[in-house]
Amino acid sequence: MDKETLLQVHERIKPFIHRTPVLTSELLNEMSGTRVFFKCENFQKMGAFKMRGAANAILSLTDEERGKGVVTHSSGNFAQAVSLAAKKLGVKAYIVMPENAPQVKKDGVKTYDGEIIECPSTIQHREDTAKQIQEDKGATFLHPSNQDEVIYGQGTAAIELLEEQPGLDYIFTPVGGGGLLAGTALAAYYFSNNCKVIAGEPIEADDAYRSLMSGKIETNETYDTVADGLRTHLGDRNFPIIQEHVEKIIRVSEDEIISAIKLIWERMKIIVEPSSAVPFAALLRDKKDYKNKKVGIILSGGNVDLRNLPFN
Amino acid sequence: MDKETLLQVHERIKPFIHRTPVLTSELLNEMSGTRVFFKCENFQKMGAFKMRGAANAILSLTDEERGKGVVTHSSGNFAQAVSLAAKKLGVKAYIVMPENAPQVKKDGVKTYDGEIIECPSTIQHREDTAKQIQEDKGATFLHPSNQDEVIYGQGTAAIELLEEQPGLDYIFTPVGGGGLLAGTALAAYYFSNNCKVIAGEPIEADDAYRSLMSGKIETNETYDTVADGLRTHLGDRNFPIIQEHVEKIIRVSEDEIISAIKLIWERMKIIVEPSSAVPFAALLRDKKDYKNKKVGIILSGGNVDLRNLPFN
Repeated sequence: MDKETLLQVHERIKPFIHRTPVLTSELLNEMSGTRVFFKCENFQKMGAFKMRGAANAILSLTDEERGKGVVTHSSGNFAQAVSLAAKKLGVKAYIVMPENAPQVKKDGVKTYDGEIIECPSTIQHREDTAKQIQEDKGATFLHPSNQDEVIYGQGTAAIELLEEQPGLDYIFTPVGGGGLLAGTALAAYYFSNNCKVIAGEPIEADDAYRSLMSGKIETNETYDTVADGLRTHLGDRNFPIIQEHVEKIIRVSEDEIISAIKLIWERMKIIVEPSSAVPFAALLRDKKDYKNKKVGIILSGGNVDLRNLPFN
Repeated sequence: MDKETLLQVHERIKPFIHRTPVLTSELLNEMSGTRVFFKCENFQKMGAFKMRGAANAILSLTDEERGKGVVTHSSGNFAQAVSLAAKKLGVKAYIVMPENAPQVKKDGVKTYDGEIIECPSTIQHREDTAKQIQEDKGATFLHPSNQDEVIYGQGTAAIELLEEQPGLDYIFTPVGGGGLLAGTALAAYYFSNNCKVIAGEPIEADDAYRSLMSGKIETNETYDTVADGLRTHLGDRNFPIIQEHVEKIIRVSEDEIISAIKLIWERMKIIVEPSSAVPFAALLRDKKDYKNKKVGIILSGGNVDLRNLPFN
């Protein structure tokens, strides 16, 4: 992995992604005591940064591999990202989903012509079903966060953010599976002048925080968090990058996350999904440490079910 | 009223407003069969186009008048707009609100240091209370929609939209009190090459539609619409402009409005208030008439109560 590779990845995926805007809010600056630059991946194609990694992963395949299709198991944004990226590249996408996945998630995949294969909802069933499709169809398995091509793709959001704001002192991202965090950390390492990368993580699913403490990949026994995109754990490809290049992980409560969502929705008038509000919640929690700094925040996505919102 | 006046108004208010972005969506273009350019006044200061008219109205006052303050009665966006514009200009703002107005509306005014004077909720009480403040304080009354300075101010959103998209065939706005619609119609008349202006209006509060039909200002006996900003009726200053310069008014059902809100929220990932979705609902309803045209839509505002959303 080097700077040149990341640049090539960025060039390669450009035709398949939006260059998303960087927004600011006077009110949120005042509230946080710092200057915050929000990289709006909620405006990305299919509504999340996952499009970047999915596009890069499929672009990395040989023609022969592309001819046999790709497979992933996900009920979240990566399923839609793989479906859309595959569609744009004329590649068949098999999406393994638990049979009890919400209809809105299934509809999202169908919109982009992904073929849904349902299975019982345990992780074992999902992995077995995906493996079966690899064998039967010769399809290539794509991992949502623990695969180099995916990690590099996710890092391109931070490259764009740093192009617009080269003087950032910090970039905050959420951490779930670790792909966005690792990619961002690489981008900051190669493309900034000592910009530090910090993650926000729900206390209720703080496996990444505990992993940094213990030095090995920890998992969650429960994950009772509104940030549904962050319930997963790190992997062997992204964890070493995170260990080496991430400054720290700040944990936030559910109340802090919901309060941050409301601030972004009400003040910025943009829709972000709960996971996206986690890094801003982390900044607000420790705002005394970032007074008068320049902080970038990656708003990871904007796919929410409007019939099921966390406000009361 | 002439072109030069509108330009002067625009120059004058520029330091007090955002130049809001114009956004597009491939999916909504496909869905409507036309090219739609959304002027995002939901990103305006205090969250709505009303800031433009309020700023211009206060800027039009003499120093002596400014010294005595301004007064309006409103429980909506105009109350916040007057409060914020007055604050920025060092002018006292008295806001008459019904005592049963939602706390979220009162809080909005307080954020901008407006002084709230509560009264019983009938229109007569509100008018009487405002008149009393005019007499007691010498404050100048500002009307949310039926005052020339306000109408000209609201027209500046369309000036900006036409600067960015000079080739628009149509501009759609919502119509409630008529200030935005009349201002937009003047702007299109003076600053476009035959761009036509069309309004969307809820069937449940279709006073403006009926006014254009009958040739006199009609009112609503009931207004059971989710588009809470559009429950008012036209006035003697804006109605003649609307009669002369507006192409037509398209009425939409509550289901069409809610469906349009959801499309804008889900597809564009931006928050608009129900009134803002009315013109897009109107375009979708009659989309066969606008095939392959270039249509501007003014998204009037983004102030919603997240605890009370029209989704189920």
